[in-house]
Amino acid sequence: MNTRVRDFPSTRKFDSDDRKALVEKIFDDLAELGRDGPGISRPTYGEGETQAMEYCAALAREEGLTAEYDAAANLVIELPGKDPDAPCIVCGSHLDSVPQGGNFDGAAGVVAGLLAVIRMKRANILPERTIRVMALRGEESAWFGLCYLGSSALFGELADGDLDRPHRSQRKRLRDFMTECGADMERISNGEKLLRDDEIGAYLELHIEQGPVMIARNWPVGIVTGLRGNIRHSEIRCVGEAGHAGAVPRWMRHDAVLATASLLGRLDEHWRVLQERGLDLVLTTGMLSTNQEDHAMSRIPGECTFSLETRSQSIETLETFYQLIRSETDAVERERGVKFEFDRRSLTLPALMNQTWIDHLLETCRELSLPAETLPSGAGHDAAVFANAGIPSAMIFVRNENGSHNPNEAMEIDDFLHGADVLYQAILNPPL
Amino acid sequence: MNTRVRDFPSTRKFDSDDRKALVEKIFDDLAELGRDGPGISRPTYGEGETQAMEYCAALAREEGLTAEYDAAANLVIELPGKDPDAPCIVCGSHLDSVPQGGNFDGAAGVVAGLLAVIRMKRANILPERTIRVMALRGEESAWFGLCYLGSSALFGELADGDLDRPHRSQRKRLRDFMTECGADMERISNGEKLLRDDEIGAYLELHIEQGPVMIARNWPVGIVTGLRGNIRHSEIRCVGEAGHAGAVPRWMRHDAVLATASLLGRLDEHWRVLQERGLDLVLTTGMLSTNQEDHAMSRIPGECTFSLETRSQSIETLETFYQLIRSETDAVERERGVKFEFDRRSLTLPALMNQTWIDHLLETCRELSLPAETLPSGAGHDAAVFANAGIPSAMIFVRNENGSHNPNEAMEIDDFLHGADVLYQAILNPPL
Repeated sequence: MNTRVRDFPSTRKFDSDDRKALVEKIFDDLAELGRDGPGISRPTYGEGETQAMEYCAALAREEGLTAEYDAAANLVIELPGKDPDAPCIVCGSHLDSVPQGGNFDGAAGVVAGLLAVIRMKRANILPERTIRVMALRGEESAWFGLCYLGSSALFGELADGDLDRPHRSQRKRLRDFMTECGADMERISNGEKLLRDDEIGAYLELHIEQGPVMIARNWPVGIVTGLRGNIRHSEIRCVGEAGHAGAVPRWMRHDAVLATASLLGRLDEHWRVLQERGLDLVLTTGMLSTNQEDHAMSRIPGECTFSLETRSQSIETLETFYQLIRSETDAVERERGVKFEFDRRSLTLPALMNQTWIDHLLETCRELSLPAETLPSGAGHDAAVFANAGIPSAMIFVRNENGSHNPNEAMEIDDFLHGADVLYQAILNPPL
Repeated sequence: MNTRVRDFPSTRKFDSDDRKALVEKIFDDLAELGRDGPGISRPTYGEGETQAMEYCAALAREEGLTAEYDAAANLVIELPGKDPDAPCIVCGSHLDSVPQGGNFDGAAGVVAGLLAVIRMKRANILPERTIRVMALRGEESAWFGLCYLGSSALFGELADGDLDRPHRSQRKRLRDFMTECGADMERISNGEKLLRDDEIGAYLELHIEQGPVMIARNWPVGIVTGLRGNIRHSEIRCVGEAGHAGAVPRWMRHDAVLATASLLGRLDEHWRVLQERGLDLVLTTGMLSTNQEDHAMSRIPGECTFSLETRSQSIETLETFYQLIRSETDAVERERGVKFEFDRRSLTLPALMNQTWIDHLLETCRELSLPAETLPSGAGHDAAVFANAGIPSAMIFVRNENGSHNPNEAMEIDDFLHGADVLYQAILNPPL
């Protein structure tokens, strides 16, 4: 497909039917551009991501908006406000996807921002503050094992080691891909901040929900209270003692599988209790295995390896639960004569959304006769980078079936338009 | 090494020092014959097994004993008794080993029988009953996925499908290997019994212990009460629902790993309680894994696969515990919204050892000033085939460190000689 923008409605009338038609066309075009087998692939700092950006840039320019790339090669579309020097409002999200993922994870937020500025432009509205739509690069960790690349680069937060990460399937490094996209690698590898301190007054991100809560609760839109942080071990190894499954009695066994099951059962129970007390928490062991080289049905397993991840909006809850993990581990070691070997712990801080903006978005929902509901984000987003850099940040979630990172993600366009309306109204009258 | 038997002590004096010297030489020679990398390999119905048999046959003939192969190509060494037509006493075990296993698993029992008949022969003892030393073929399942081949063939219990089982690494089938060893394949594939009904009056097997109990209890020898049977599933698949580890709340999760951990925890607890009530039981999940193709640290596991094996000397305990397994599985399915898919259940019946012989062996231990202790066998042995065919059977265990099926198995020769003494004395005055 040619990325040239074709046949957009030329009339200046832009009612809800027109907006729906435009949005459907944009999502269809993006899907066609990114089609890869059963899903959509827009690789981080790669061709698919750039094609999607070029498509959005062309569309913006067609509407008389400016569209340029910043020093980290993120796409920036601007509608100047009354005072061009006042801190701007950013409507951002990312345009990359996981390999063979869905069409909406990331793109929905960029399209919502684009729709808002087109709507203002067509209505000849001069906003209070400059509105900047940012299509960020490299939010997905699937390509280089690191997430939030485009936003982290803006804040001088990509270390040299990060830039040397290899691509998941190609020989080249992140650094090479960024260079090809036109990023200013000297400033980035120096850890230089690519934004002025007072350049951004607020960061707003619309995103599909990646869990099933809003479907279950019947909320078309939801306002995010905070983004969960996490503590992770990618590999914990339980070391017991292998032996003949029939010939070693219970009292002499050091079974690594039953020890691991016991630990996970205890942690699951703590999780249940803490959650009933109102704490925000999830716990996941996504990978688990006995030693594939020497395990057998009739051999007491001497080894069991597993990952452990816990997430919470509260750093206190994370640390408290982590202490429970370690003390339960000690208890199982004592009881069962096994040893748990932990790899390096990784910590990602939670990010709180800005209360003023949360209240403003909830009020906007009520004005639009939409449910005014809040929920935490279990997944991470670029909004966490902006929030942790001190920029007042907020997120609007749009209901979405079947999760994300798969070809079956299913956002209804009407739900998207509700979320886009909330974004539009909220930046039209910002609480600044 | 040449398999020709060299330089055996030619004196007719045969005291305990002589016996120790002979036994050490036999085990050393067998080890040299079977040496394979770090361990010992004597493949089932294969060259290594045959070499070990030829070595024992030559040694027996040197001593004036007969040594022939039966219709299943098992080696039979005989010392005729007072009444050659009365049912004989068999001292048997196997001469094959697992790949790169140890030197004693199987061979110890054959050597003990051989030592007993040599001892009688040298002392010109005419035993009450004919003593038949049987070196059985194919006890280890490692080569064709089936155990007890040589003994099962004797009782017409090898089905045609069994004979077509392929070798673990070669293109040929069990049938081909058996033919090469001279087995009568027509009678065997017809399921014909290769023994007369009254041919064998008792089956006695000395074997190393494959667990750590006798080391822990400080028993050089032990008398086996019964051989555990087992119920096995080689693959149970827990099917839950994959999802984003951060974005799906607890109440909407169907986590296959936590469900499996919960099931194993419940079964472990039932095991503990049943054992405290005196029931004989072990439980092992030797193999366990999330789906290696799509699992990830941040993905709720939608699938977890595991093996389950439970063993007991009592068929009632096995079946009772199996019902518990199924009802706990149902409970976890209901509680967690997952499904457990079971593959075909396999059942091996337990085998009870003969009480008259157990009492006789215990009495013999006491006469020899050895501890007279009983223990169950968690592992299976040819003795189970003889016992389940209605032949009074018994087993003598010899203490052994580091388990079996590995190059580190470590039986002390002095312990072996104690066990061999018990066997010798017991068949000298059989309770027949």
